[in-house]
Amino acid sequence: MANRILYNIAFAPPEDRVQEYQEFLENVKRADTEVKVVALERTSLGLNFRYYLALVLPDILHIIKKAEQEGYDAAIIGCFNDPGLQVAKEMANIVVTAPAEASLHIAATLGQKFSIIVGEADSIPPVMENVISYGLKDKLASFRSIGLRASELRKDEEETAHRIRQAAREALEQDLAEVIILGCTVLYGFSREIQKNLGVPVIDPVVAAFKYAELLIELKKRFHWWHSERVGFEHPPKDRILT
Amino acid sequence: MANRILYNIAFAPPEDRVQEYQEFLENVKRADTEVKVVALERTSLGLNFRYYLALVLPDILHIIKKAEQEGYDAAIIGCFNDPGLQVAKEMANIVVTAPAEASLHIAATLGQKFSIIVGEADSIPPVMENVISYGLKDKLASFRSIGLRASELRKDEEETAHRIRQAAREALEQDLAEVIILGCTVLYGFSREIQKNLGVPVIDPVVAAFKYAELLIELKKRFHWWHSERVGFEHPPKDRILT
Amino acid sequence: MANRILYNIAFAPPEDRVQEYQEFLENVKRADTEVKVVALERTSLGLNFRYYLALVLPDILHIIKKAEQEGYDAAIIGCFNDPGLQVAKEMANIVVTAPAEASLHIAATLGQKFSIIVGEADSIPPVMENVISYGLKDKLASFRSIGLRASELRKDEEETAHRIRQAAREALEQDLAEVIILGCTVLYGFSREIQKNLGVPVIDPVVAAFKYAELLIELKKRFHWWHSERVGFEHPPKDRILT
Amino acid sequence: MANRILYNIAFAPPEDRVQEYQEFLENVKRADTEVKVVALERTSLGLNFRYYLALVLPDILHIIKKAEQEGYDAAIIGCFNDPGLQVAKEMANIVVTAPAEASLHIAATLGQKFSIIVGEADSIPPVMENVISYGLKDKLASFRSIGLRASELRKDEEETAHRIRQAAREALEQDLAEVIILGCTVLYGFSREIQKNLGVPVIDPVVAAFKYAELLIELKKRFHWWHSERVGFEHPPKDRILT
Amino acid sequence: MANRILYNIAFAPPEDRVQEYQEFLENVKRADTEVKVVALERTSLGLNFRYYLALVLPDILHIIKKAEQEGYDAAIIGCFNDPGLQVAKEMANIVVTAPAEASLHIAATLGQKFSIIVGEADSIPPVMENVISYGLKDKLASFRSIGLRASELRKDEEETAHRIRQAAREALEQDLAEVIILGCTVLYGFSREIQKNLGVPVIDPVVAAFKYAELLIELKKRFHWWHSERVGFEHPPKDRILT
Amino acid sequence: MANRILYNIAFAPPEDRVQEYQEFLENVKRADTEVKVVALERTSLGLNFRYYLALVLPDILHIIKKAEQEGYDAAIIGCFNDPGLQVAKEMANIVVTAPAEASLHIAATLGQKFSIIVGEADSIPPVMENVISYGLKDKLASFRSIGLRASELRKDEEETAHRIRQAAREALEQDLAEVIILGCTVLYGFSREIQKNLGVPVIDPVVAAFKYAELLIELKKRFHWWHSERVGFEHPPKDRILT
Repeated sequence: MANRILYNIAFAPPEDRVQEYQEFLENVKRADTEVKVVALERTSLGLNFRYYLALVLPDILHIIKKAEQEGYDAAIIGCFNDPGLQVAKEMANIVVTAPAEASLHIAATLGQKFSIIVGEADSIPPVMENVISYGLKDKLASFRSIGLRASELRKDEEETAHRIRQAAREALEQDLAEVIILGCTVLYGFSREIQKNLGVPVIDPVVAAFKYAELLIELKKRFHWWHSERVGFEHPPKDRILT
Repeated sequence: MANRILYNIAFAPPEDRVQEYQEFLENVKRADTEVKVVALERTSLGLNFRYYLALVLPDILHIIKKAEQEGYDAAIIGCFNDPGLQVAKEMANIVVTAPAEASLHIAATLGQKFSIIVGEADSIPPVMENVISYGLKDKLASFRSIGLRASELRKDEEETAHRIRQAAREALEQDLAEVIILGCTVLYGFSREIQKNLGVPVIDPVVAAFKYAELLIELKKRFHWWHSERVGFEHPPKDRILT
Repeated sequence: MANRILYNIAFAPPEDRVQEYQEFLENVKRADTEVKVVALERTSLGLNFRYYLALVLPDILHIIKKAEQEGYDAAIIGCFNDPGLQVAKEMANIVVTAPAEASLHIAATLGQKFSIIVGEADSIPPVMENVISYGLKDKLASFRSIGLRASELRKDEEETAHRIRQAAREALEQDLAEVIILGCTVLYGFSREIQKNLGVPVIDPVVAAFKYAELLIELKKRFHWWHSERVGFEHPPKDRILT
Repeated sequence: MANRILYNIAFAPPEDRVQEYQEFLENVKRADTEVKVVALERTSLGLNFRYYLALVLPDILHIIKKAEQEGYDAAIIGCFNDPGLQVAKEMANIVVTAPAEASLHIAATLGQKFSIIVGEADSIPPVMENVISYGLKDKLASFRSIGLRASELRKDEEETAHRIRQAAREALEQDLAEVIILGCTVLYGFSREIQKNLGVPVIDPVVAAFKYAELLIELKKRFHWWHSERVGFEHPPKDRILT
Repeated sequence: MANRILYNIAFAPPEDRVQEYQEFLENVKRADTEVKVVALERTSLGLNFRYYLALVLPDILHIIKKAEQEGYDAAIIGCFNDPGLQVAKEMANIVVTAPAEASLHIAATLGQKFSIIVGEADSIPPVMENVISYGLKDKLASFRSIGLRASELRKDEEETAHRIRQAAREALEQDLAEVIILGCTVLYGFSREIQKNLGVPVIDPVVAAFKYAELLIELKKRFHWWHSERVGFEHPPKDRILT
Repeated sequence: MANRILYNIAFAPPEDRVQEYQEFLENVKRADTEVKVVALERTSLGLNFRYYLALVLPDILHIIKKAEQEGYDAAIIGCFNDPGLQVAKEMANIVVTAPAEASLHIAATLGQKFSIIVGEADSIPPVMENVISYGLKDKLASFRSIGLRASELRKDEEETAHRIRQAAREALEQDLAEVIILGCTVLYGFSREIQKNLGVPVIDPVVAAFKYAELLIELKKRFHWWHSERVGFEHPPKDRILT
C-alpha cells in the first residue's frame, strides 16, 4: 500500500505556489509514495516572528491532526524554522518531520561541517535555537545571509542564485564548510545548479524533509521505531486534557 | 505614580487560588506598586505538555496585549516553564518577565551553583530548555524531583515541604548546590520555612518574578532600558502582519 | 536497477554468523535492494582496541575499494565503533555508512535524549569519541554497560536480553533517556522484543545502518548528494599518492 | 529606614571624580536610598593587571568590612573587572555586587546576545573570565575594543562617544548583538545619548550595579535571600582564622 | 650551572614540615638542581577560603619577587589551589608553576580522563575553577572527596591512604578515570604505594610541580620559551605602577 | 645510563632530511640522552589524508614496537597530526609522544591562548580533532594558514618565515593569542628567529616533542608514572590477539 505524506506549507504562499510545490514533490517522491501539498490560509511569508508562529501554531497542529484522521502516514511542517515540530511529535500519532531537522541530520552525515544560507540575518536566531535543540551545533561552520526577505527570494531567481553561490563560496573558503544547506523552503529547486557549480552537496530543505519522512515511515511501519512517547515527548494523558 | 503589574496565572487554577495569589503578592510588592492577579480560563494545572501550551499561548498573549492597553507597566507569565516569554517580549510594549527567568538570574547571583526542585521528572526537559536558552546551564548543579504532580503539591503541604527539604538536602550535599530554586509556581510561599531549615537561599519563583518585574519597570522608566527590539526580539513590522 | 549494498562484518565472527547476518538483512532490505554479507578473515570479535583496528584497517578499506570496483552502491562497516568510517568516506566513491552513525542520527530524531547500551565499560571511550565527532554529544543521556564481552553476548540470549532490559530501564528512569540504542552489532535482532517490553524505540544498529545506506544511495543517485570531498573528506590527489 | 549603599571606586581616580560619581549616583538611586562614594587611595586607573589587583585587594576588602561595621546595607566594588567580588561575598555580611555582574544579568534579560565595549583589547581576558564564571558566556555576542586606555576615556568625550557608537554598530550588525554593555565604569553617563542613537539598550555599568544592589538589599531584608554561605561562598570558620 | 628552585609552602605548616618537604624534594630533583623550601609565616593549613588567599597573596608574591632577586630560576607555589599563579606569571621574570597546573597537564598526557581526590568537598569549587581556566575540563572524570580536612590528612596516614584507595577505586570503576591526581600538596609522598596497589598512575602534586618546573627552566634557558608577556600575562608597564 | 629516544619522521622526507633532523636534535637533547632519527620508507610528505595514514599506520607501529625491543626509552611520532599516538600508547611499553600533544600542553602553560600556524587550511580538521581529543580546545585562539604545502615549506625559507611572521601577527592582534605554535614538523628550526621578532613564545613542535619525551622518561623511570593501561589505553589482552 502506498505511503501517504502531507506537505503543509506552513504559511500562506502566493497563489499557484501550492501547485508548484505539488509538481516539485511529484518528482522527489518514491514511486510508492503519494504526496499532497496544502498551505495555511493565514500568515504572511516566513515565520521568523515568534508572534506569528504563536498565532498560526494551532492551525498547523490542526492540519496534522486532520491528516492523521485521514490516514496519512506522515506530515511535513514546511518551513525551515520547523515551527511546532516538537509539539507535533508530542501530540501526533503519525510521523512528523520538518526541513531543518532533516537537512541538518543529512548534512552532518555528508560532511564534517555545514553552513546554512539564510535570506536575512534575523532568521538566524530561531534556526540557531533549533540547531542547538537538535544537538548539532558542533557541526555548524557558519550562517551566511544573502540579504533578501523570504518574499523576495523568487522575484529574480538569477540574482538569488548568484547571491547563494557567493555566500556559499565564502562559507566553503572562510568557514571551512563542507556541505551547504539552503536555509529557507522557498528556495526549493535551487540546489541542483548551485551544487554543480560548487562541487559540494547543497541540501534542498524540501527534498530533505520529504526523503526523511519516507525513511521515518519505513522505520515506523517495519520496525515500529518512531517518536518516543517518554519524558520530552510524552503524550498528554486524557485526565489532563483541556476542556 | 504607582507601578502596575499584572500577574497572570498561566493556567486555570482551583477556585480561590486567584485570591490567594492576590493576597500573597500584596505582601510581596513594594509600597508604590499595584498588583492584579488574573488566571487563564482554560487548561489544567501545569503546562509541561507543549500541546496544551500551543493551545493556550494565544490566550496568554492576548492577556498581555490587553494589560498593555489598560496601562499596566509589566505582565508576569505565572508558570515556571515561562510559557510564551520570548514571544511576549517580541510583541509587547511593556515589561514582561516570568518565574524561571527571574529565579535563575537571582540564584546565579547568590551562589555559584543552584539546583531546581521540580514536582515530576517530566517537567525537567522544558525547564532545561529555558536554562540553556537563558545561557545559565553552567550554573545548574542539578534538578531534583519530589514525585508529585502540580495538582498534588498543595494537597498535603507538610508532606510537600518534607519532600522539598529532602530533595534540597541531596542537592546541597551530593550536587554541591549553593542555592535552591523551587521549580513550580504552585509552591509560592513554601520558601521561607524551608530556607530557615536549610540555611541557604531558597528562591520562591513567584516572589522572584515579581521583584524582577519591579526592577525592570524601574530600569525602563528611568533609564529606557528594556527588551531589545533587534534580531531575536525584533517586533513584527506592520507590512508582514497577519490578516 | 537494484541497489546493491555490501555489509562487511568488520571482524572475524564465529562460523555460520555470515549466513545469519545474510538472512537477517534479507528481511530488512527494501524489495529493490540486493545485499551481500562478507566478513574479515582475521581479528577476534570486537575492535575496541585501537591496535587491532590499526592492523585490520587496511583490510576494511580494501574490501570497500573492491566493492566499489564490483559495482556496489554502498558499503557498510559492520561494527558499532564505525572503524575506518571517516577514512573510507575520504577515499571511496560509493556510499559508506556504519552502525553508530546511522543509529545516532535516527535516535536523535526519535527522541530528545538517547542512551547507548554497551557490552563492557571499556567500549565506552571509542564510542564516545564518535558521539563527539558526529556532533551529537548533547543528545546523549548516558552509556549503560551490561557486563558482557562481545563474544558472550549470544551465548545465553535470555540472559543478554534480561540485562539489556534492566540497563535500559535504568537509562529511562534515572538518565531520562527517551530512546535506547543497542551499542554492539552482535546484538542484531534483539531490539524487537525489548522494544515491546519497554515501550520506547530500541534501535538495532545493523538495521539502522542498512536503512541509512538505502537512504544515502537514493540521495546520491537522485540528488547527487553524497560525502563532501572538501576539507575533512578531500580525496587524496594523485600527485601525493603512495608508491 | 533608608537603605545605605557604599560605592567604592576600586582605584585612585583623578581629583574631583569622587564628587562627580556622588552626584551621578544621587540621580540614579531610589528616593529611600542613601549613597556614599569613596575611592582607593592607591593604584592607577584600571585593574587589568592582576598584580595591581593583588596589591589593592586587601584595601578593597577592608573598605567593605568597614562599611559593614558602619551599618551599610551594601557595598559596590566599582570597577568592571569586579575585583574581589567573589572573596567579598565570602567574607562579608552585607550585600556586595559589582558592575559586570549586574550588567551581564540585566543585559541577558533584555536581549538574547550582548556585546561588551572595552577600552583596550587587553581588558578582554579578565572580563571574559568573569563572563565564564558568571555562567553567561553563551549570551556573549562579542567584545569590541575602542582603542583607548581607561585614563583616556574622558579626555575627549565626543571622540569616545563616537568610537563607542561605531564599535556598537559593528557589534549589532556583524555580531548580531541585541544589547550593548559599556565595559568600563569610567564610561558612566555615556549610555543615554548612545542609546538614543542606536535604538537598543546600552547598559551603564555604574547604574546597573547600583540598581542591582538596591534589588539585592530588598531581597535580603524582606525575603532573607542573600549570598549563599555554602561550598563556594562558605564563610571562613573561626578555628581556621589567620593570626 | 645548577638550576635553583624555590618551593614555597603557600601556608603555615606544622613545625618540622619545612624540613620534611626539603628532604622529600632532595629525592625528587635532578642531580643538577638545587632546591630550597620555605613557608608562609601566617595562615592556617589550606587556602580554600578566598579571604585567606587575598590576605596572604601579597606575601606569596613577595617571596617570588625575592626569589627572583636572589637568582632562583623558578618558584613553585606550593598549594593545590595554585594560589596566585596567574598573577605571579604576570609580574615575575622567573619560571613560576604550581601543583595543579603541573599535575593536570601530566595527567592529561598519561590518560584520557583523570579524577582528582580531594580532602573535603568544599575544596572542589576553587580547583574546578582552575581546571576550567587551564582548559582541561573535558579531561576531568570526577572529583572524589575523602572527608578529611587538610590538617587531618597526616594524622593517621594508614587511614588516609585507605580512604584514598577507596575513592580512587570508585573513580576508576564508576567514573572511568584512567589517572588519579592527589588533590592536596599535604599528600606528598602518598602516591607510590597507592599506585602500586591500583595499577594506574597516581600523580603526587608536589613531585609534578617540581618536575614541571625543571622542564620549564630548561625550555626557558635553552629555547627562550616562557610565560608570554602579551594580553593575559602582559607585565605591568612602568607608567602605571602603584606608588 | 643514557636515555635513548627514537625520533620517527612519520613520512618519507626528501633525502638528507634524516641527517638534518639528527643534527638538529643533537643540539636539542639533554647531555645524557641519545637520539636516533629514522624515517618511513613510503608515503609522501604530510599525513593530512586519513587514507595515507591508514596505509602507513602499521609501519609506524612496527617501528615503535621495534624500538621497544631494541631498548629505547621513548619513541616520538614525528608529524604534527600525531598519527597513531593513541594506538601507540595502547600497545607500547615505552614512552610515546608526538609534536602536537607536547606543543599544546607546553603552550597552554606559557599563555592563556595559543594559535597554530599551519601550511594549508586542509590541515586544520585533523589537528582540530586532536586539540579536542587532548581536551585543550578552550585554549585555542585560532588556526592561521600560510598557504603553503608541506613540501613547499623549506623551498624558500625566507618566504616561509615571512608568511609565518605575518600569520602570527594576525593571530596575536586579531585573535588575542599569547603563544604561537608552528603546526608542522617540517618547520623545525624556524622558531628562534621568529620568536625574537615577535616577542612571544613560538613553539617548535620537534623540540617540544623531544623535551616532553625526556620529561616523560624521567617520570616513568623515577616515579613509575606513565600511560595508564586502563579503559581508553587498556592493553590488548592475549586471549583476544589477532592470528
